[in-house]
Amino acid sequence: MGAACLLALDFGGTKHTAGVISTAGQPASPGQSLRAWRAHERVFSPPGADARYDIQAMFDLAHRLLGSDSPAATGASFGGPVEAETGRVRLSHHVPGWENIPLARMLEEEFGAPAKVDNDANVAALGEYRYGAGQGFDSVFYITVSTGVGGGWILDGKPWRGADHMAGEIGHTVVDPSGPVCLCGKRGCVERLASGPYMAQIAREMLLNEVDRADPQRGQILLSLAEGDPDRITGSLLSQAAAQRDEIARSVLERGAWALGVGIGNAANLVNPGCFLLGGGVTKAGPLFWDTVLRVARETALPQVHFEILPAALGDDAPLWGAVALAEDCLR
Amino acid sequence: MGAACLLALDFGGTKHTAGVISTAGQPASPGQSLRAWRAHERVFSPPGADARYDIQAMFDLAHRLLGSDSPAATGASFGGPVEAETGRVRLSHHVPGWENIPLARMLEEEFGAPAKVDNDANVAALGEYRYGAGQGFDSVFYITVSTGVGGGWILDGKPWRGADHMAGEIGHTVVDPSGPVCLCGKRGCVERLASGPYMAQIAREMLLNEVDRADPQRGQILLSLAEGDPDRITGSLLSQAAAQRDEIARSVLERGAWALGVGIGNAANLVNPGCFLLGGGVTKAGPLFWDTVLRVARETALPQVHFEILPAALGDDAPLWGAVALAEDCLR
Repeated sequence: MGAACLLALDFGGTKHTAGVISTAGQPASPGQSLRAWRAHERVFSPPGADARYDIQAMFDLAHRLLGSDSPAATGASFGGPVEAETGRVRLSHHVPGWENIPLARMLEEEFGAPAKVDNDANVAALGEYRYGAGQGFDSVFYITVSTGVGGGWILDGKPWRGADHMAGEIGHTVVDPSGPVCLCGKRGCVERLASGPYMAQIAREMLLNEVDRADPQRGQILLSLAEGDPDRITGSLLSQAAAQRDEIARSVLERGAWALGVGIGNAANLVNPGCFLLGGGVTKAGPLFWDTVLRVARETALPQVHFEILPAALGDDAPLWGAVALAEDCLR
Repeated sequence: MGAACLLALDFGGTKHTAGVISTAGQPASPGQSLRAWRAHERVFSPPGADARYDIQAMFDLAHRLLGSDSPAATGASFGGPVEAETGRVRLSHHVPGWENIPLARMLEEEFGAPAKVDNDANVAALGEYRYGAGQGFDSVFYITVSTGVGGGWILDGKPWRGADHMAGEIGHTVVDPSGPVCLCGKRGCVERLASGPYMAQIAREMLLNEVDRADPQRGQILLSLAEGDPDRITGSLLSQAAAQRDEIARSVLERGAWALGVGIGNAANLVNPGCFLLGGGVTKAGPLFWDTVLRVARETALPQVHFEILPAALGDDAPLWGAVALAEDCLR
């Protein structure tokens, strides 16, 4: 048996990651997030996999990485609602069979060590706070802008989960009550205007509706990047087109950034955290996106409310680093 | 010298209240807030009074109430920004001379006992949480809807003040970016639509603009309550007119309640507290106001986000009861 180690797990929808890390020393500095792993690997579930399959695949992976070692503690991030006090998964919105699964207890039995489990937004926030771009702040709101828009709070150095473990849903705060209708039923949520798929949908609709307008060049860069097929437009393609100064792409991205900026400014006025960290694919959209978010958030917040808005540093590994933090907390 | 007591102080703009309460036993239950005071009195400052005047008036009042007793601790609520860790007042928006006043230290020197000071929204939230309608909840957002709209958080049983002590500014969250311009420079803040003076202003403008419209009866109840003078319309008059089914009054009040409901629903999605408590004059506006706030907040929050919205129980005494809680905390 080797030196003491921690086991960190990230249960995604179809993508599961495990890492083994030494308990000694500082795990990593931002931007060097993978250096300190003793072992680190990702596996993918096949279509149709259920909770039972995913759990077994993760156990197998973890045992393989651990070899003959036993972890001193285990931390796990789960992509869905979790009752963090008990480490019980409530359900998955993507994978069947996760209803009411006592994941922390199962991990404790499997690996013979204390375990903590929390949902991915909270765990990613914890990872960025302890090892990423949130270091040095007492309060952080981590926001991921990707397929959806969600977030996790660190307040006074600890995750704030809320009375129903639902805190952080900035994606479903309303910023424009006359905006388009979201899947959640409301008009003009941040997610409806700023998530990748919804921005792509808005651009598609604009292309189709503006085709016979005065300026036939409008949107043509976007359309040619999509090889002439509006259905191929994605959030990422939109960013590329905006960088090439496509006007439709720029207007959609700017409105999404406006919505996120109002959401952040509102959150700043309400909760006044020292720092907002933005991660997820949409935040890679370039200066038009960032400049707009920063300007609108600043305009929306009161002058006495100060904050920084920084890019998250750990990328897709934020939940795994947060799982390391959870495991560390088991030993305190 | 009598049995041990606590000194509670509430520095308002022109209205200062002091109370002396026994350290023994439960101070009060909601709705019986004044029963347990050993002594309790309010004084008013004359126009033009400054910080020095107010402090001396409060000291004189407190010594009179204490008689020969010395308090075991002092808590104070202040109507403006306070650095709570040190109990230093930053400034008053209404009274000159409060810039950078070490109020907690002055209270400790004057009364020979430890003292804590915080701003009125946080202190009122603490009062409602510990002795009022927030009892039994771990997390509470107290909102006062009056001349302005502001709030104070209790998260996990403790005041959450934010990185700049600015948390709770729900009044300046944007809910309608195409709404009217607020003093803060933004369009469609909650305060611009739901505070008493701004609702009165909206009603005045509607009366003046709709005078030559089809329905000459519209607004006449409101106008007659204001004795024919639109400048006499206040938030309170608006509530009376709405209760008598004046249509302009009802539409203004309903829009204000809608704005507050969106603000509360957004706050619920972001922070997920167990309970919202509403105090201040506007919340006495009756069922149209309350029903609209409750419905819109519920529609705005995600279905998995649960909360109660309750009337605050301690009324104008919430800050004084919070000051009792601060004094108690000095002894822990």
